[in-house]
Amino acid sequence: IAKEVAKLLEMKAQLGGDEGKHKFVLKTPKGTRDYSPKQMAIRERVFNAIITCFKRHGAEVIDTPVFELKETLTGKYGEDSKLIYDLKDQGGELLSLRYDLTVPFARYLAMNKITNIKRYHIAKVYRRDNPAMTRGRYREFYQCDFDIAGQFDPMIPDAECLKIVHEILSDLQLGDFLIKVNDRRILDGMFAVCGVPDSKFRTICSSVDKLDKVRAGALGCNCRCWSFSESLSLWAALTMVRENWLENADKHRVVLVPPFLWRGGTQGTAISFDLSLARGLDYYTGVIFEAVLLQQENDHVEEPVSVGSVAGGGRYDGLVGMFDPKGRKVPCVGVSIGIERIFSILEQRVEASEEKIRTTETQVLVASAQKKLLEERLKLISELWDAGIKAEVLYKKNPKLLNQLQYCEDTGIPLVAIVGEQELKDGVVKLRVVATREEVNVRRESLVEEIRMQTNRP
Amino acid sequence: IAKEVAKLLEMKAQLGGDEGKHKFVLKTPKGTRDYSPKQMAIRERVFNAIITCFKRHGAEVIDTPVFELKETLTGKYGEDSKLIYDLKDQGGELLSLRYDLTVPFARYLAMNKITNIKRYHIAKVYRRDNPAMTRGRYREFYQCDFDIAGQFDPMIPDAECLKIVHEILSDLQLGDFLIKVNDRRILDGMFAVCGVPDSKFRTICSSVDKLDKVRAGALGCNCRCWSFSESLSLWAALTMVRENWLENADKHRVVLVPPFLWRGGTQGTAISFDLSLARGLDYYTGVIFEAVLLQQENDHVEEPVSVGSVAGGGRYDGLVGMFDPKGRKVPCVGVSIGIERIFSILEQRVEASEEKIRTTETQVLVASAQKKLLEERLKLISELWDAGIKAEVLYKKNPKLLNQLQYCEDTGIPLVAIVGEQELKDGVVKLRVVATREEVNVRRESLVEEIRMQTNRP
Repeated sequence: IAKEVAKLLEMKAQLGGDEGKHKFVLKTPKGTRDYSPKQMAIRERVFNAIITCFKRHGAEVIDTPVFELKETLTGKYGEDSKLIYDLKDQGGELLSLRYDLTVPFARYLAMNKITNIKRYHIAKVYRRDNPAMTRGRYREFYQCDFDIAGQFDPMIPDAECLKIVHEILSDLQLGDFLIKVNDRRILDGMFAVCGVPDSKFRTICSSVDKLDKVRAGALGCNCRCWSFSESLSLWAALTMVRENWLENADKHRVVLVPPFLWRGGTQGTAISFDLSLARGLDYYTGVIFEAVLLQQENDHVEEPVSVGSVAGGGRYDGLVGMFDPKGRKVPCVGVSIGIERIFSILEQRVEASEEKIRTTETQVLVASAQKKLLEERLKLISELWDAGIKAEVLYKKNPKLLNQLQYCEDTGIPLVAIVGEQELKDGVVKLRVVATREEVNVRRESLVEEIRMQTNRP
Repeated sequence: IAKEVAKLLEMKAQLGGDEGKHKFVLKTPKGTRDYSPKQMAIRERVFNAIITCFKRHGAEVIDTPVFELKETLTGKYGEDSKLIYDLKDQGGELLSLRYDLTVPFARYLAMNKITNIKRYHIAKVYRRDNPAMTRGRYREFYQCDFDIAGQFDPMIPDAECLKIVHEILSDLQLGDFLIKVNDRRILDGMFAVCGVPDSKFRTICSSVDKLDKVRAGALGCNCRCWSFSESLSLWAALTMVRENWLENADKHRVVLVPPFLWRGGTQGTAISFDLSLARGLDYYTGVIFEAVLLQQENDHVEEPVSVGSVAGGGRYDGLVGMFDPKGRKVPCVGVSIGIERIFSILEQRVEASEEKIRTTETQVLVASAQKKLLEERLKLISELWDAGIKAEVLYKKNPKLLNQLQYCEDTGIPLVAIVGEQELKDGVVKLRVVATREEVNVRRESLVEEIRMQTNRP
């Protein structure tokens, strides 16, 4: 009976779908967007810069499913857990969409008993946040994560993460940036001296992280933390640091900024120690950092909420142990590049510069000037494809030459290979350079080589 | 109050998570898997072959969100709709995970009023099916789609889709394959003559599509269709085709296999017209096709269910119109490469061949033979990174040279750059070729160039 009911409901849904098909709103879900070919071209540039950097640092790559068992995510994100997307219970396991790439990474390490890896992972994550899409904040967004897991000498991998942020932001030429650095152990020391109970450390961290938002939104519930932070003097902070933390200096050596971070090309850039940096996530246990852009493209727009944060990360030595059946720890440190914000900036820049971005790589259009040459065009393009040449043909039986040339102008195709009855008889193809309108007859057997030479893509 | 309750529930969930953290099953959700670095290396090879082909044919690329409004997917997949993953109603819009890339593509076209595009899209899709993961069937799996949308002369874009399947399967060297081709209009003609009411056409198609499964599984409920199909003689079929379809031959010209598909290199390959091919999806309206591998890697394993289907597609002229407020149609034809099956085959092949796959591209390890040279190693590697050299360093203050050399052997790093006190004094670096154990002193300012030359990666 249940099966029959389901079938009827399904039919009803289908009928409903048909009846209402012209009524529903034609849109993507709230906080999400499509990428057009032009946006994809910009996105691939950014990805290339980031992946090149990750590979330069010897990272492997992994991938994990878009959803995890709900319990895998439970208890990892503190009060932000309310932003997790759950899947409907359709029988079977309870699932949630991944909230970041760090928890799936820790689950992966524990599950496969890996104690030593340097990996990157680029994928979409999901947060039921209130999106501000014009500022590059979405509910579905990419994270580009680089993490180093393993028991190593202090601060060497941590410093490499900072170096990576520095390299990527420099490569992308986003203007001046500042990398703020702090340490959860310092914050914990401060909280302890202030009399905050241990159990509240993470909540307070999360609140400190939202200070900017509090200032902007004047949310009553968080004001206590805000004034707590305001009243905290540097003297108090430093005392606490000394008492609670630096006594273990040998164990937790502060080599936050090793010499190699300061070599060349750091004009206009700075790494600064910032006691107000807290980071929202629960799982950090040591160094934390965040990169912000200093010069915004839209300086005239008031943007009080986390202006220009484009990367963040830190050390999380306890997370893998939460998954391991015996609680074995694997120390980890990592960085996440938040590229939606970077996309937005580069998109605006392309928009402003009127730079013409090609969305295909086609080298040659196979065209004809006369009618009834469809089969000859298809035969030629097939030869070109088989030789690895990027080629297109208009899907018309008898296209006009003018339309074919116009198509090249519109899409940036640099060459046209024209077949005609005379050319077929002579065993040649007329090769036209779109930009200069030069035409030259090329022997058919030399055509592939000639196209390669002209487009310089062997 | 609701907010407080939510907060308490959240706290309870967290406590539960902490208590039970060593009890829960450490796994990925049913029907999903992680990709290890080695699997990713194979996956990237396959993607490269596919993307290269799509670009060779002049396709642009787009991306869409992983979930759509539930109503966007409603009424598009017939009885398979029950396999759609719904998200939990957490307030706001009702959402579902995408089931394929075709419906989101149609939604994208209608939403942006695009009437003419050739695009590819590579992304994961989701089906609550019963997975058979050993055979490369998952609940989360990649599709690689290539589609041509627009009003064109008959069969030219359709034939290009077949050409693409042919090129990709040839490139990947998966062995002999067969591309089966049919046309929904022929099937509809047959159903009409058999007295099947119009409203049942799609259901019957779906049943015909499952014939193989029926044969294997002997599912009682589908047996009617099975015998229906068996009893259908070729004569009846051809009569129906003539009567219902070929009278419009000029409009719907059958150029299923244009000459260019038959040029060179088709030994062991065939494109065959197959009346039993139906395809499961509701939205096809013309040509349909499916590629199957003929020689399985595991010939000894009995695999009666859809053996080796690795690509499929067809024409769907009505789908975009279902989204357009005015019902305007955009004719489309496309192909989807199902690469999970291909991954499985290539993984098995790599396994069997004991081919050593590198999972990083690191060119050089920066090492030292003496103690207290951490800062010098970091300084040198920083120079190399800034020059674009892919380099690694062990995260130890004083690693042993033997361990550093062993690391290169294990990971396939071809070169070691060794700094020592004497080398620092002399302004040189000792460059060691791991394979030959040859060592040569290189002046520090020539090191980058020397590494580039030796690894042949400018």
